[in-house]
Amino acid sequence: MTEASPVRETIEKYLDGWRTGDRDAWLSLFSEDAVLVDPVGAPANEGRDAIATFWDRVHQLPMVFEPQIERIVVCGTEAMALFRMESRAAEGAGGMSIDIVDTFEVNEAAEITKLKAYWDNKCMKPLS
Amino acid sequence: MTEASPVRETIEKYLDGWRTGDRDAWLSLFSEDAVLVDPVGAPANEGRDAIATFWDRVHQLPMVFEPQIERIVVCGTEAMALFRMESRAAEGAGGMSIDIVDTFEVNEAAEITKLKAYWDNKCMKPLS
Repeated sequence: MTEASPVRETIEKYLDGWRTGDRDAWLSLFSEDAVLVDPVGAPANEGRDAIATFWDRVHQLPMVFEPQIERIVVCGTEAMALFRMESRAAEGAGGMSIDIVDTFEVNEAAEITKLKAYWDNKCMKPLS
Repeated sequence: MTEASPVRETIEKYLDGWRTGDRDAWLSLFSEDAVLVDPVGAPANEGRDAIATFWDRVHQLPMVFEPQIERIVVCGTEAMALFRMESRAAEGAGGMSIDIVDTFEVNEAAEITKLKAYWDNKCMKPLS
């Protein structure tokens, strides 16, 4: 029983962007002045350019990402996503998963203005 | 492999307060000017007095609460708790559970300054 909503669509597209590796589509989900903190406690990536640099850093190695979504909760203009991010080398075996909680703030244009990712080393597991 | 930390202790005491029903101990975990939003999207409870009123409203009926903790992640002075809150009538059968993600900001005195709870109706299930 999941109602469609612009906020929910944005969250789903955000996770889809990881799956498809479509950098432009993923970046377009953020407002120009968006702030991304991943993980919380690390320095904030402030503005879409900094967020693009974050994406590029994560994609330095040829990895494929597969978010396994457990729960998305939309609370007005904010939201939470509980998921396991699986990442594997684009070629070859092995990889790892990270159990993540993301929180989102979204503006009237359904753009992400703030994203905070809660995870630590204990949330990481090897994938066979 | 969970390291002790003042922030983690505060989160654990927060959840313990629900379990024990110790209103004073629970309230003392918040700073005087703390903000509690539960669920996100609802009006904020601003200040310890408003948070006390929130507690009293939840405890109007004689319920017992049993948080089932799945994950606590501490990120510097912020944290996230993933848990299932089971609630039952103090006498009698039945009850319900809510799957919740709480995020916390904590000050240098290890007091909670901000708490946001992410859940919606779809996170609620009857307990047999």
